[in-house]
This record gives sequence, structure tokens and C-alpha cells, in this order.
Amino acid sequence: MSAINHWLLPEGIEEVLPEQAWRIEQLRRCLLDTYRSWGYQLIIPPMIEFLESLLTGAGNDLDLQTFKLIDQQSGRMLGLRADMTPQAARIDAHSLKREAPTRLCYLGSVLHTRPDGFAGSRSPLQVGAELFGHAGMESDIEIIGLMLETLRLTGIEEVHMDLGHVGIFRGLARAAGLGPDAEADLFDVLQRKAIPEIEGLLGGMDLSGSQGEAFARLAELHGGREVLERARELYRDIAQVQAALDNLAAIGETVHARWPQLPVNYDLAELRGYAYQTGVVFAAFTPGCGQEVARGGRYDKIGEIFGRARPATGFSADLKTLMALSRLESPAAGAIYAPAQDDAGLAARVRELRAQGEQVIQGLPGEAGDPQSLGCDRRLELRDSVWEVREL
Amino acid sequence: MSAINHWLLPEGIEEVLPEQAWRIEQLRRCLLDTYRSWGYQLIIPPMIEFLESLLTGAGNDLDLQTFKLIDQQSGRMLGLRADMTPQAARIDAHSLKREAPTRLCYLGSVLHTRPDGFAGSRSPLQVGAELFGHAGMESDIEIIGLMLETLRLTGIEEVHMDLGHVGIFRGLARAAGLGPDAEADLFDVLQRKAIPEIEGLLGGMDLSGSQGEAFARLAELHGGREVLERARELYRDIAQVQAALDNLAAIGETVHARWPQLPVNYDLAELRGYAYQTGVVFAAFTPGCGQEVARGGRYDKIGEIFGRARPATGFSADLKTLMALSRLESPAAGAIYAPAQDDAGLAARVRELRAQGEQVIQGLPGEAGDPQSLGCDRRLELRDSVWEVREL
Repeated sequence: MSAINHWLLPEGIEEVLPEQAWRIEQLRRCLLDTYRSWGYQLIIPPMIEFLESLLTGAGNDLDLQTFKLIDQQSGRMLGLRADMTPQAARIDAHSLKREAPTRLCYLGSVLHTRPDGFAGSRSPLQVGAELFGHAGMESDIEIIGLMLETLRLTGIEEVHMDLGHVGIFRGLARAAGLGPDAEADLFDVLQRKAIPEIEGLLGGMDLSGSQGEAFARLAELHGGREVLERARELYRDIAQVQAALDNLAAIGETVHARWPQLPVNYDLAELRGYAYQTGVVFAAFTPGCGQEVARGGRYDKIGEIFGRARPATGFSADLKTLMALSRLESPAAGAIYAPAQDDAGLAARVRELRAQGEQVIQGLPGEAGDPQSLGCDRRLELRDSVWEVREL
Repeated sequence: MSAINHWLLPEGIEEVLPEQAWRIEQLRRCLLDTYRSWGYQLIIPPMIEFLESLLTGAGNDLDLQTFKLIDQQSGRMLGLRADMTPQAARIDAHSLKREAPTRLCYLGSVLHTRPDGFAGSRSPLQVGAELFGHAGMESDIEIIGLMLETLRLTGIEEVHMDLGHVGIFRGLARAAGLGPDAEADLFDVLQRKAIPEIEGLLGGMDLSGSQGEAFARLAELHGGREVLERARELYRDIAQVQAALDNLAAIGETVHARWPQLPVNYDLAELRGYAYQTGVVFAAFTPGCGQEVARGGRYDKIGEIFGRARPATGFSADLKTLMALSRLESPAAGAIYAPAQDDAGLAARVRELRAQGEQVIQGLPGEAGDPQSLGCDRRLELRDSVWEVREL
């Protein structure tokens, strides 16, 4: 191991340096204040939990993305959180146990074993909001509204949205009598839109021609509202699929009515996320970012294993991605330099300026560099027994 | 594995629920704003790094406290940060590389393999500030001042402080010609104040009677300023120890002059922290907490392995411990309930109230519970075509 390796960071693991860190802090505050004003309560879930708590209800994807380690105290396997949504569900189901709808929000680091997301990061700063305890489409609309508000506050313009519904795939799988393994395999390849793999997999399954065709056609069902009509026609005999289409159409109509400027693309093979989704799924995109900047959906019953099956819907995003796409200006106020003198009047003036929100940097005897190199654009100077702030 | 285990958290790993989480968020903002007003710039170091980066300059203690895992990408060993101070040193030395003094602050989760600290936690929320690039006592005083300001802002009263200096022990070790292993062993037992072990260890070392005596007496040197005089006398022949005592006395006098109400206890065997300290060390205590609530000290040259040996001094604390001891009142403002109606006037009024900083919870059709169970103390009602806020 050469000395030079001591300061390298692992691939996809980032540090955030001062200027950017303060911009992230300001956006953090803005978003958490907004979520609070909508009634979403902040929680701070732990960085590590027992593995089975973290992975409950989630699929193979989340398992592969989760770093594992052994707990010396208990001898049990722990996981580093790769997604905070199941943590919020555990807190709703086990720690809060309310009957009424519960709105929670969170913001913190998650870690992934493999790079994905924006710029190949393995350490996103996940921010999100979840609404538990209400099964109607009104809570999905509230969550979509909060996601769009998040992007607006971040200064991301030109947003468009993908809308899908996992119930369509689930309905087809049930109608075809697929077992859990076959359903999971098919979910995987559809999620990756790997058309040759989908065809290969369908060919190897014990499906009638029309059943195989039903799945294969799913991958083609994307576009405007007309997609819903085509799906209704294609899957007219499958009640569960029709119910999912009704739900999706109603949500879509409300989205069009409430955000008429927002371009919406329906994508019925969209199976975004970590396999815990059960209903509507949505993702927001913006030009200049090859993948979604925020995503979410309905994931009822994830809390079942914690003792309470609650309806749930939510969204999340990576704050670092949001920041990178943000057009918000950063207020670049310079600091005030206080000379290295032990003077009670100076100390009092420094306290006063700091209390007013100014940055005041105390000079140190013999320090290297000048006030400018410390980021100062003004300095305190004694004039006629008064410490005055002067331009440098 | 029984189902009940799914929701248990590992021992010492805590989640923070809504009310407490918001109090922590408010304290976080207050502290980071204060650090910024003193010129300390926020950084966000990563949760995981290559193990050797995290442990550089630190002793056995930090190694034992650090969770390890394998990076699937590089095949190398990673560590979950157990202390953010070495991360700040790496960022100063490698990423920022400034000549002038650099002031950094941070706030984030750290994880420990074994419980320590307040209430046996293994997941403190570490907050701290570090000043790099200045070797004089003025920077130590600035850091002590910022630590005391942190406690004042937290609402912790009745603070007292321990002051020590690692240079005294280091000087004795050098004078006795101890090798690195013997020095580390002795450091360990002195740190734990394990008197029988200290005596046993000294008995087994190849030391003259007066040299063994010098170490043994160190553990007795605690109390008021008179301790410094006794040490000067005891170790009058060891120049390095005398220099450390001069530095400690000068810092102590400045502390007495600047904070005359602050009780100070000198403790020359105090070897607090993770073995990277090199000079003055200090810790703040308050009644009702069996251990320090904040601690810090000088740790010059920790950045050497990253390519730059810089003087350094800093302090840190656990925000959860601070919060638990805080007497700050939490503003318990209730929320406003907006009935589940699709009405443009209502939506506009909700937006307006939220922008004013009010919490407004949108009712959902058929939801369980009443507005009070959602935390509301007021509701919006339509009176004469105007949506008015009324007490519940």
C-alpha cells in the first residue's frame, strides 16, 4: 500500500467541501421547513439496523445494494441503510403506531455497494417524505405535489413526469399464475427494459401464447393518455389490471388538472424502485440529467412484518443530485477580519457582529496568509476609539 | 429468528422520533450558524472511507471502535467513521491545502462497535469544530471558547472543565526511553486510570526507581493550580515536560481570566481521546452527566500522512447528549387542519399559511382519527366565502 492511497476516497464515495456543503445545508433547511409546513414530521432513522429490518418487503435489488457487517455485540448481521423508506415504514408501524394518517420526512446519507444514480455515486444524501395510513389517491396526489414543490424550491425548472402502476404487472402475473420466483425474475428484466431478456424469459415459462404476449406488450405501453385506452382494450378480461388502470387514470387526470403545464408520460412497464411498490409509481425528470431526479409511489403493507399493514405512499430524491442541477444562487458574503489583539472593546464588537449574522474571523498571532486568503472582504479597525468595519 | 426481532434495533443504535428530531434540527441550525459566524466552514465528510484513512494517527482505541467491511468494488477494507476529526484533518491536508489557518466544522452520525459515551450509545451524532494551521495557544483558546459557547447555546448551565496536557506524559516516556509499544500500553492504562494495572505495568518495565515513580505520581496530579507547581518540582529535570507545563499554565491563566466563573480542574494524567492528541487536552462536564459532554485538544501533525503536517486543535461533542441535557424549551405550536375539499380558495389559503411558517395538514377523505389526533389545534372553516382559521 503506497502512501498516496491514504487520501483517496473509495469510488463513488464523496466528501462535500465548504462552499457546496453550505449550499446543501441551506437547501436542507428550506426543504425540511417546507415539509414541516405541510405537516410532515422529521425523523432520524439509524445508519445501521439488523439486516432483516432493512430488507423487509424489499426485493433482491436492495439486498445487493446493502453493505453488510457483523455486530460484535449480538453476533447478528447488520446492514448499512441503502434506502430510508423501509426505515420510515418501521417507525410508523412500530414506534409511532398511530391510527390517523402519519406524515414523516427524513434527510440523511445512504450507502450503496455499487454505483448507481447521479454521477455513479455510492453515497447519496436521501431526502424524502412518506404518508402512511391512507389508501386513497388523494394521498398520492399530496406526495406528487410535495415532490414537485421540492423541485421548484431547488430551482429545477423544465420538469416532466413518468407515471406507471405496479398493479398492472401484478395483475398480469396473477392471471398467468406465475409463482413468486418467476414473478420476481420477470419483474427484474422488465424493470431493466431488457427486451431480449424479457422475450427469452417469457419463452422459457409455461405460459399460453396470449399470456406471454400480454407481458411482452407491456413493455410497449408508454406514451400519452392513449396508452391507458390501449391497455384497457388489451387486458379487458383481467379485473385486477382494470382496477389498476382506473386508479392510474384517476391520478393522471388529477395531475393534468392540477399541474396543466407538467408533461406526463405514461409508462406501464415502469417498475421503478426496490420492488416494494404496490400501486402508482412516478418519477420526475429534467433535461441534463439522464435519469430521474426524484421518484416515488405507493407501497401498501410494507409495515406488515412490523406488526401493522398500513397503506403508504411517498417519494425521495438525492439532495446532492438536486443541488448539482439547481440554479439557485449562493449568497457569497465575505467575512470580516478581526486583528489578533487582546482588547475587550474588540471582543465586544466581534460578538455583536456575529450576533447580527456576520462572519467574523479572529486573527491569530503569526498566522500565515492575509485576511483575503481567509475569505475576508472587510476588517475591523480602531478609529477614534471605535472598532469600525472597513473594506479591505 | 422470531418475527418480533424484525423491529428491534441493535443495542446502542437509536432512532430519533418526531418531537425530539425537530429539537435536534433546531439545535443543529443554531450551532452551525454560530460556527459559521466564527468563520468555521461546514464540511460533509463521507460515512465510509478506506480504513487506513480513518485510522491514521489514531491509536488502538479508534481501531477497536471502527466497524469494518469489504468494498466489493476495490476489494479493500473500508471503515465506518467512528470519529470525524481525522476526516477533517484529511480534508484540510489533502482537499483544501490552504496556507492560512483553516477553520472547519461538521455534524453527522458516527458509529461505534462498542457502547460508550452517553447512555451506552453506539451511534452518536458528532458535532465539532477544528482549527488547522496555527500552533499558538490563541487557537486553543478560540476552540475552548467555541466549545463553551456551544454548551451555552444548548442551555447547559453549571459547566466545569478539566485541563491536561499530553506533552507531559510524552516527555516522561521519552525521558524514560520507552519504546512505542511500552508507551502505548502505559498510555492505555493511564487513560483508564487503572492504578493497579499502572503499577503492575511499571513494575514489569525496565525503568529506574525514579522513572517508575515519575509515571506513578502522574496519576495523582489533579486538582487546582497548585498541581502545576507540584509537577514543575517533580519533573524539574525534564525539559519537554517543563515546556508542556509552561504551555498548560499559560492556557490555564487565559481561561481563568476570560471565564472567571468557570471552575477548572487540572488533571495531568488526563489522556483523553483517541491517542492522536499532542498538546493541551480539555473536557467539559455538567452535573447529571457522569462523563464529559464535550472534549477536545491539540493534535498537531495528524495530517502528515496525507502529505501535510499542520498544527491542529479542535473539540467535539455528541448532539444527542447535548440535547438530553439541554434545558431549552421546545416551541410546541399546533398545526392547522384543512378539510378534505377540492376548493381553489382553500388551496390558496393553505399555501399562504404554509408560506407564513404555519403547519397546515391537508385532510384526506375517509381518514381515521380526528384533527386533534393529527396534532392540530386549529382548523380552516369557510365563513361568508372566506376560509378562516378557527380554534378547535
